[in-house]
Amino acid sequence: MSRVRVHNFAISLDGFGSGEPQSLEAPFGHAGERLHEWRFGTSSWKEGGSTGVDDLFERRHNDGFGAEIMGSNKFGPPGWQDDSDWKGWWGPNPPFHTPTYVLTHRPRSSIEMEGGTTFHFLDASPEEALAVAREAAGDLDVRIGGGATVVRDYLAAGLVDHAHFAVTPIVLGRGSRVWDGLEGLESSYDVEQVSAPSGVTHVTLTRKA
Amino acid sequence: MSRVRVHNFAISLDGFGSGEPQSLEAPFGHAGERLHEWRFGTSSWKEGGSTGVDDLFERRHNDGFGAEIMGSNKFGPPGWQDDSDWKGWWGPNPPFHTPTYVLTHRPRSSIEMEGGTTFHFLDASPEEALAVAREAAGDLDVRIGGGATVVRDYLAAGLVDHAHFAVTPIVLGRGSRVWDGLEGLESSYDVEQVSAPSGVTHVTLTRKA
Repeated sequence: MSRVRVHNFAISLDGFGSGEPQSLEAPFGHAGERLHEWRFGTSSWKEGGSTGVDDLFERRHNDGFGAEIMGSNKFGPPGWQDDSDWKGWWGPNPPFHTPTYVLTHRPRSSIEMEGGTTFHFLDASPEEALAVAREAAGDLDVRIGGGATVVRDYLAAGLVDHAHFAVTPIVLGRGSRVWDGLEGLESSYDVEQVSAPSGVTHVTLTRKA
Repeated sequence: MSRVRVHNFAISLDGFGSGEPQSLEAPFGHAGERLHEWRFGTSSWKEGGSTGVDDLFERRHNDGFGAEIMGSNKFGPPGWQDDSDWKGWWGPNPPFHTPTYVLTHRPRSSIEMEGGTTFHFLDASPEEALAVAREAAGDLDVRIGGGATVVRDYLAAGLVDHAHFAVTPIVLGRGSRVWDGLEGLESSYDVEQVSAPSGVTHVTLTRKA
């Protein structure tokens, strides 16, 4: 059955999914690539990389997803809506390979990219966007791709079936924080924590039956 | 050599060391005892309890400490300064067994308790209080006992040599948060994360040489 999932969403010890300020040169602000170094150390990314729990999560990065929903800040730097040529950070062949729904108050025409990714732009509530993405995903899962605000909104709305966070051993101090407004989340989810030798702790939330 | 340490300081996934509101009936506010359940499950606390990593941390709870510094909110509920008979939450024989310095803007006379605990009251900066506590501790360590605000202040001032946090699998949403204002803490500390079957992740920060 199709599920709604967050996967490989990296946060700092203090819960930030990105730093600030976000810009064309620094998509994650002062966090740089530090939230994602654990991924680059796995055998999925490089020969001779790690093959333990980090790699298990990394290998499932795109596994079973039929659509993605992302926030405006994930698609581009502040102001991308004013650039009619902006097609995301990821070049001609983005790593999504599915219909990908970008939440924005200034929607534009869909953009078909190489490799199966088509960007669609929606001015919609989390529930409305999910209905559209579910339809597109069919039996496959829908990824809530971030940033932190969007992940938080979907968790707060009770729409997420499974979430995976990678807690990296840094303190960002500022940026976009994922946990705010989610008091009592553990009453709806089984929470598991597994540390990896890379220094990361994988936190998974599985909706209770 | 005497070190300054935080040990067994429990926080939620979102970094809160206690809930709110704190009161005589609810010292940890809406967190209740949930931040500390992992401790009660160890063989240090009950026969047949766990003997793994949780218990290793728990057994060192008082190990090697010659003095403690705590914040006003750890010593009593809001307004305890107006009660001249208040002697802390812990009954006649508190679990500190050392000189214990309570930071407060309304100091009072010292209180000698059973079992080696004497409460002293200081209206002092973190540095000033530490100088007094170090003198009392001699070759033993000084514990920064909390709450979250005091732990944060000592970390921010660069005064902590070693810190241990137990990250419990709950989202408190509100209360007193330990990580605020500590951007870049990882540049001064080696950070290790170890998960336990209880659901807790032990995060240790060891000051870099």
